[in-house]
Parts: sequence; structure tokens; C-alpha cells
Amino acid sequence: MHVIKVRSHQREELVEFTDQVEEKLKEAGAGEGVCFLYVQHTTAGLTVNENADPDVPRDMLHALRTLIPQHGMGFRHGEENSDAHIKASLVGTSVSIPFKDGKLLLGRWQGVFLCEFDGGRERQVIMMLR
Amino acid sequence: MHVIKVRSHQREELVEFTDQVEEKLKEAGAGEGVCFLYVQHTTAGLTVNENADPDVPRDMLHALRTLIPQHGMGFRHGEENSDAHIKASLVGTSVSIPFKDGKLLLGRWQGVFLCEFDGGRERQVIMMLR
Amino acid sequence: MHVIKVRSHQREELVEFTDQVEEKLKEAGAGEGVCFLYVQHTTAGLTVNENADPDVPRDMLHALRTLIPQHGMGFRHGEENSDAHIKASLVGTSVSIPFKDGKLLLGRWQGVFLCEFDGGRERQVIMMLR
Repeated sequence: MHVIKVRSHQREELVEFTDQVEEKLKEAGAGEGVCFLYVQHTTAGLTVNENADPDVPRDMLHALRTLIPQHGMGFRHGEENSDAHIKASLVGTSVSIPFKDGKLLLGRWQGVFLCEFDGGRERQVIMMLR
Repeated sequence: MHVIKVRSHQREELVEFTDQVEEKLKEAGAGEGVCFLYVQHTTAGLTVNENADPDVPRDMLHALRTLIPQHGMGFRHGEENSDAHIKASLVGTSVSIPFKDGKLLLGRWQGVFLCEFDGGRERQVIMMLR
Repeated sequence: MHVIKVRSHQREELVEFTDQVEEKLKEAGAGEGVCFLYVQHTTAGLTVNENADPDVPRDMLHALRTLIPQHGMGFRHGEENSDAHIKASLVGTSVSIPFKDGKLLLGRWQGVFLCEFDGGRERQVIMMLR
């Protein structure tokens, strides 16, 4: 089991942390298997998507904000972050990525992102190799 | 392999079953690993989210119903539950949660929910520890 | 580790490939465990949903297209496929399905689908058994 800390700086932000995962994977010396990442929070998620053009994460946050705005949907939860809880469940709290020869089997354009929906904060991600 | 039965009572409902998962985990006597939960249905999903304020699940179902209403989007599937199939794929049919010392590594506010979108029914969840 | 190729023929299409997964699973001779499927692309996803009525996948693509159209949301990413990236993160890049006696523990109506959002193309799916 490994713990990865990821820091966000804005209310909504996609923070790539592929390098931190690759580093832990290298340290662990594991050959082939599945890398599980799990975020221990209810207003943040994890996803794999394009890390080349920063407009991709920007467009994703923009679309999610358009569909599920912070205010105006008649939410009752008193902390004004129901939108963040919902977005977290839509992208999901975990990702599973295969690895081989100690490296993640990511596609050419793929990176691993923390999806921050109620930041900025430090978030904790649990990593398990199996 | 373990089987968990979860009962819903309304068409749309988030039913927490964290205790059932923790109980099976304890019975299994497993130390550290990943707990996989998988729902064998196409109109229900699984998610991890806040279990403290019941307004969070309520707001989630409300937002999903607003975005994807049961009627009015021109659905063709004859069973009047296309909305349920779509919501199931959006939240997903499985969750993966790490565990250590025989306990789920959930965050402080996290619980495990069956997302019922076409109930009330008894739903079957498969659990595997790895 | 196994590699599965899935071919799509339209920009948006749900392509079932349950048979290919079952075949690889049989070849591998594995008894009980979890089957991980991971798509190495950023404009396609994976999901489990109903494979009986083709109107279910049709309605799913229709609803996603209604919520997140290719044009008109003010996307900045220059390749005119931001909608595809977003849909991929909503359905997710991986699925985890338990198996026993060398067969996927799918529910009665469940099939495994590649969710193509920017095709037609050949897509690569990595399969790991654990």
C-alpha cells in the first residue's frame, strides 16, 4: 500500500499526477499487474484522460459545470458543494491501470488526473498494486 | 467470492450497504488488498460518496433525474427505463476499495452505496478480495 | 496480460465485445478472480450494460449527445472532439468484472461494451486477470 498526496489550488481543477504514480511503481519494483488508485474524499474523483492539450481538462470542467452548476438546481445539502459530490460520483473515486515491466500501460495521450471539485486542498490517494 | 443482497424500496434510491461489506470482509479474515464490488444488473450501479447528510444522495438523484428524465428525451427502448440504464453506466457497475487490517480504507465521510434507478427490488452484488 | 482489438465503424457507437473477453478468459484457464479491462485511448470508454435490446445503447448515445453535444458548448480544444473526451471520462476507461469457473459473472442482461465516441477506429483494450 502506498499513499500519494495531491495538492489542488482552485475550486475545480484537474491535477495530473502520473509522475507520482510512476515513481511509486518504480520504487515498489513490481513487474506486471494492475495499479489501483483510490481517492479518500467525497468531492474529488480520479480519471484518465488526455494530458497533452490543457484545453481538454478545461473543457471537461466547463461541461460538468454547465450540466451541474454549483447553484440553481435546488440542492438541499447545506455546504454548497452538492455539485462537487455529484461530479465525484460521475467520474468515480477509483481508477485501475494495468502495468508491465514496472511501467503503467497508458495510451500515448493518457495521463492520470485528480479531479478536484471543491478545492483547493491536499487530497489523499491510496495506491495498491496487485 | 461473496454475494451481498441489497434491497431497494423506491424507483430511485441510494442504499448504503457499507456495513454488509465490512462484515463480509471481517468474516473473510483478509489483511490487506482491494475489495471489488460488482452489481449484476443493468439499471443499478455502485458508488462511494458521503453517508453523513442524507441530502447528498437526495441531491445526486435529483440532479441525475433533471439531466436524464425518465420521459421526454425521445428514448426508444420500450421498457420506460432507458434513463435507468444510462445512469447505471454513468456511475458504473463496480467500485474498487482498498482495505488494510481487515477494514475498508474509506475516507472519513465515505460510504458504499447501491444506486437504484429502477426499483424497488432486491439486487445482487458480487464481492471479491484480491 | 492479454490484448483485445475492438473495431468501431461510426463516430459514436457502443460495440459489444463480451465474446472476445470470454474467449481470452477461457484460453487463460483461470478459475476465479477479477477480469480487468482497460482502454488505452482518451476518446473511448468501457461499460457494462444491456446487450439484449439495441435501443438501450442507442438511447445511451442519444442522451450523452443531448447533454454534451459535439459543438455549441464553447469548447476550446482544437480537434472538435472535446465531447468525446468528456464522455470517455464519464463512462470511464476501465471495467472490473468478477469471474468464476472460467466464466464472467455477468448478470442475465449484461454485456461488455467499448464506448466509441470519436470513431470509427480500431481500439486497443488491455485485459488482466487477478
